[in-house]
Amino acid sequence: MRQGKAEIICTGSELLGGKLNLYIPLFHERLARLGFSIEREQSSGDSLETIADCVRGALLRADLVIVCGGLGPTFDDLTRQAAARVLRRRLVHSKACARTLSLNYGLKKLPPNFRNQCLLIEGAVPVENSNGTACGQVITRGAKMLVLLPGPRKEWEPMFPDFLDSRINAFFGFAPVKQVRLRIAGMWETEAEKLLRPAMRRFALASYTILAGPGTVDFIISGDDSRGLVTKAANSCRRLLGGKIYGEGEDSLAAAAGNRLNAAGKTLSSAESCTGGLAAELITETPGSSAYFLGGAVAYSNAIKAALLGVKAATLRKHGAVSRESAREMAAGARKFFKSDYAFSVTGIAGPDGGTAAKPVGLVYFGLAGPRGVRLFSRQFRGTRKFIRACAANFILDELRKFIE
Amino acid sequence: MRQGKAEIICTGSELLGGKLNLYIPLFHERLARLGFSIEREQSSGDSLETIADCVRGALLRADLVIVCGGLGPTFDDLTRQAAARVLRRRLVHSKACARTLSLNYGLKKLPPNFRNQCLLIEGAVPVENSNGTACGQVITRGAKMLVLLPGPRKEWEPMFPDFLDSRINAFFGFAPVKQVRLRIAGMWETEAEKLLRPAMRRFALASYTILAGPGTVDFIISGDDSRGLVTKAANSCRRLLGGKIYGEGEDSLAAAAGNRLNAAGKTLSSAESCTGGLAAELITETPGSSAYFLGGAVAYSNAIKAALLGVKAATLRKHGAVSRESAREMAAGARKFFKSDYAFSVTGIAGPDGGTAAKPVGLVYFGLAGPRGVRLFSRQFRGTRKFIRACAANFILDELRKFIE
Repeated sequence: MRQGKAEIICTGSELLGGKLNLYIPLFHERLARLGFSIEREQSSGDSLETIADCVRGALLRADLVIVCGGLGPTFDDLTRQAAARVLRRRLVHSKACARTLSLNYGLKKLPPNFRNQCLLIEGAVPVENSNGTACGQVITRGAKMLVLLPGPRKEWEPMFPDFLDSRINAFFGFAPVKQVRLRIAGMWETEAEKLLRPAMRRFALASYTILAGPGTVDFIISGDDSRGLVTKAANSCRRLLGGKIYGEGEDSLAAAAGNRLNAAGKTLSSAESCTGGLAAELITETPGSSAYFLGGAVAYSNAIKAALLGVKAATLRKHGAVSRESAREMAAGARKFFKSDYAFSVTGIAGPDGGTAAKPVGLVYFGLAGPRGVRLFSRQFRGTRKFIRACAANFILDELRKFIE
Repeated sequence: MRQGKAEIICTGSELLGGKLNLYIPLFHERLARLGFSIEREQSSGDSLETIADCVRGALLRADLVIVCGGLGPTFDDLTRQAAARVLRRRLVHSKACARTLSLNYGLKKLPPNFRNQCLLIEGAVPVENSNGTACGQVITRGAKMLVLLPGPRKEWEPMFPDFLDSRINAFFGFAPVKQVRLRIAGMWETEAEKLLRPAMRRFALASYTILAGPGTVDFIISGDDSRGLVTKAANSCRRLLGGKIYGEGEDSLAAAAGNRLNAAGKTLSSAESCTGGLAAELITETPGSSAYFLGGAVAYSNAIKAALLGVKAATLRKHGAVSRESAREMAAGARKFFKSDYAFSVTGIAGPDGGTAAKPVGLVYFGLAGPRGVRLFSRQFRGTRKFIRACAANFILDELRKFIE
């Protein structure tokens, strides 16, 4: 089975000036599904010559070249010009692009900076942008394909399922790489790797990638599935992981808990201290979460913990706000106040300051309240304030998922 | 004064297969201090041909080329061989390297996989590795310098202050690059560019980068400041932007509002509907925010809007939860319930469903309540649920900052 060679070029001086390039793993995943491996990645500043040089080299080596960025309306957006120079083709005004822009933005006459968004490389097929003004472009030359994409993820990502996947498949017809992404919580990366080693040994021809998040692990199995290799390897991994898997593909922890609430016809509320609204934010990121999420309290001050959640003054005095007892009263209090079937609480020390010998930075207490009573947890996380908060939010969402009957 | 051009090459198939490359911002910072800007970055898999091709191209273009990774003891560590091939030099056994390794690891005889760690490119200066077995290498040819570094950050990072900074400075002697990052809210990317064009024209020798976020813009000015170019350009931009600048460098919108609250000795609370806790989360991301943030309500259901925030049943019935009137009562209600000096509210339709002709997806109402009364706003955002929520949270944090006296 032949596989395709792809190269990625990312443009933008910011990528060489302090901003992380988050896109390569995303492109890797998308292109693997289409039968391509990425052979080289180049990041270029906003220089016409450099972009052109990157494109020229990549087109000599790879089957598929993707350039991401530099299609916007400002002076430093130069990808169209660079690609046109390499291909020795003209830039032409596209009436179809102009029409789409007029419709999407309800404008009779396009402002000057929009007009340059309608320039296509001669012979290019435009790719509609549902979330911005710069359309994508697909150009083929012989057996090669060059794809120009706008820089923002929310603009280029939907172009794959909407248009590019089928276009690339039709042009190249490589056997797709099947990919299964198992989403795991409640284990460290090394624990997951150790647990999964027998499956990796038994199905050694598949490829495996392990990605660690804050309290989560993604395990990706990929390869040619024409003889069921990836399917069998994934089944073996699923058996080994059991309930540690909260979802697959793009499933989120919050959506996994939300699905259980929806199925049971139950409602939820929250009481957060150290996570400051992060857990509620993750829950409400899921469209339709208003069906089960009634509301939440960000109870940062002790007065609010008492007034809104009914945490007793004696509890706060004796055990402190960061304690099992406070977590218990916060969860039970939220359930009562919001009149929900389930409620959770989070209270801890996110740092960087505020830790003591007895209660160090990263110590977090959690409560879950439901129809059958309360469950309590505590965990000690290590890392930055941001990482500790993310670990804490993910931890309680995972426990919530398992708690809902 | 002349500035240097650098290129970075990162090797490792994992960088093209799902792992984030976290190094470029680190190299950017180190090299800017030495007077270099990064002109291009390439990531290569563990292929001798590809690494050699990357090094060959980079040495033609740049003054300084850094290759990171591929110096380990395993079969897929090929950087030494690739660099030797490009330079047409031999690999020679270094007695000095062997001695250092023996000392550091307390070994009389080096194991076989260590021996290959003592291979230097002919004419290279070794760079001691205090945290691993692979030494770095510095090779000069004419006016160019090639630096080979081990992959792990903890191994290569200390090599800069310990050795490379002074070596690179002595060889090139460039003036360091100064960078100013202005953080802007309440303007679109194109508006900011238009406003700043006079400064960019007047100080055309500085470099400019513009980065759009959800409702925010970063404008970065950089260059050689030995004659005050960057300082003057930044001052000119600051004058043009005025109060649109909420911070500089790493300042966040939430921290800007928090600083004002801290300075005034005032407190804050929040009432969020469609942002679902995101605004509270951003506020509490700032360490020490508990000094002014008392708490917040995520009032997702109408019952909670009424019970907790005191939004009147008549208001909800007549105008709906997404309305100016509800935003007003939510902000005033939060201020009263949490007994804070200031409070804000957000209520809108984040989508993707739930929009109507009169109240489309992306329509958001905001309220600010303070000692001198209430201010109300509405905005229509476009984009994904996530983007609309981020725009809404940033919008109200920026208005809050300006509202605090």
